[in-house]
Amino acid sequence: MIKPIGKFIVVEGLEGAGKSSAINAITHVLQTNDIDHITTREPGGTPMAERIRECVKHDWEERVDEKTELLLMYAARVQLVENTIKPALERGVWVIGDRHDLSSQAYQGGGRGLDKTVLGQLKSLTLGDFEPDLTLYLDIDPEVGLRRAKGRGALDRIEKASLDFFIRTRERYLELVNHNEKAEVIDAMQDMPLVHQRLKDIMRSYVSS
Amino acid sequence: MIKPIGKFIVVEGLEGAGKSSAINAITHVLQTNDIDHITTREPGGTPMAERIRECVKHDWEERVDEKTELLLMYAARVQLVENTIKPALERGVWVIGDRHDLSSQAYQGGGRGLDKTVLGQLKSLTLGDFEPDLTLYLDIDPEVGLRRAKGRGALDRIEKASLDFFIRTRERYLELVNHNEKAEVIDAMQDMPLVHQRLKDIMRSYVSS
Repeated sequence: MIKPIGKFIVVEGLEGAGKSSAINAITHVLQTNDIDHITTREPGGTPMAERIRECVKHDWEERVDEKTELLLMYAARVQLVENTIKPALERGVWVIGDRHDLSSQAYQGGGRGLDKTVLGQLKSLTLGDFEPDLTLYLDIDPEVGLRRAKGRGALDRIEKASLDFFIRTRERYLELVNHNEKAEVIDAMQDMPLVHQRLKDIMRSYVSS
Repeated sequence: MIKPIGKFIVVEGLEGAGKSSAINAITHVLQTNDIDHITTREPGGTPMAERIRECVKHDWEERVDEKTELLLMYAARVQLVENTIKPALERGVWVIGDRHDLSSQAYQGGGRGLDKTVLGQLKSLTLGDFEPDLTLYLDIDPEVGLRRAKGRGALDRIEKASLDFFIRTRERYLELVNHNEKAEVIDAMQDMPLVHQRLKDIMRSYVSS
């Protein structure tokens, strides 16, 4: 009997797109189908990668260089891929990832404007040809996403200033998923039951294929 | 009057080569010549880079992937170069660095055997054409260096096992400094007063050139 190999499924999207509840909907389908799985998050997911996450997210008094941020994201990613994701997949366990490489391409590339070639080279240097089997991108208008994430009606001055950043990030997300045959775009502006229904339909079809 | 531009001088070498006392000898010459200077260390040198240093040096229970280590080294390096080294040089302040990029080339490249092309690309992606004005490499037999670092006469099993690692690191150091016109090799096997005399001669000549 051939040992089953796990699948790596990644959920991507802006803040407020509903990634956490999407992951619940996905794991529900896996449970129903008796598929062993784990969930991971990026940056983070191993003790060392979580320490790197703290370092990236910390509110430093010094300016954090864009390249420092990018290298830390990749350091955490490599550690998680090598120590957790690949070993799980090899045991036949499915991995549901809350963000992966596409986040760096969209946020650091689109949002912060780092060079696409640099990002592509860094990806290939560190991950080789490892990539998700399926990416589920929850697409949302950044203003709606930010409002949902903040849990209130209007954006303040700072949030509006950063809106441009999220608009550029979304544009890059869409550009990349539209050219990726292993990615699905889910309209996350719909009511949540409809979003979850769509996710479950995709997953049921994926699991039985 | 043209604003003077500082010089970036890096001290490199294996454990026990005597980098700290070499840096004292170097800064002594700068003080005598009324040259404003700071000293930095890698990985580290800014609050964020020091946090990354702790993360690299910590004795994690999980395996630390070579690429994770390498990316963290470069993350700390970029942060230090952009926030401390470049601004100092632009103010005309000299920077004396305890390690810099050559350490990654020698330790991660030579010692850990990471691909030279990968290291070269990562260097160019993150640092561009920024490099030290002068590198002073303290060359020492790894066994002697380890003994000095441990402060005793014989190497234990673990230290001997890692000796191969340091032999490969030294080979790569020598290979690289012998092809670098801006690098000087100092025989650190000599008695310390001779080593310091050599360093001071180099620095006096460099300062007055």
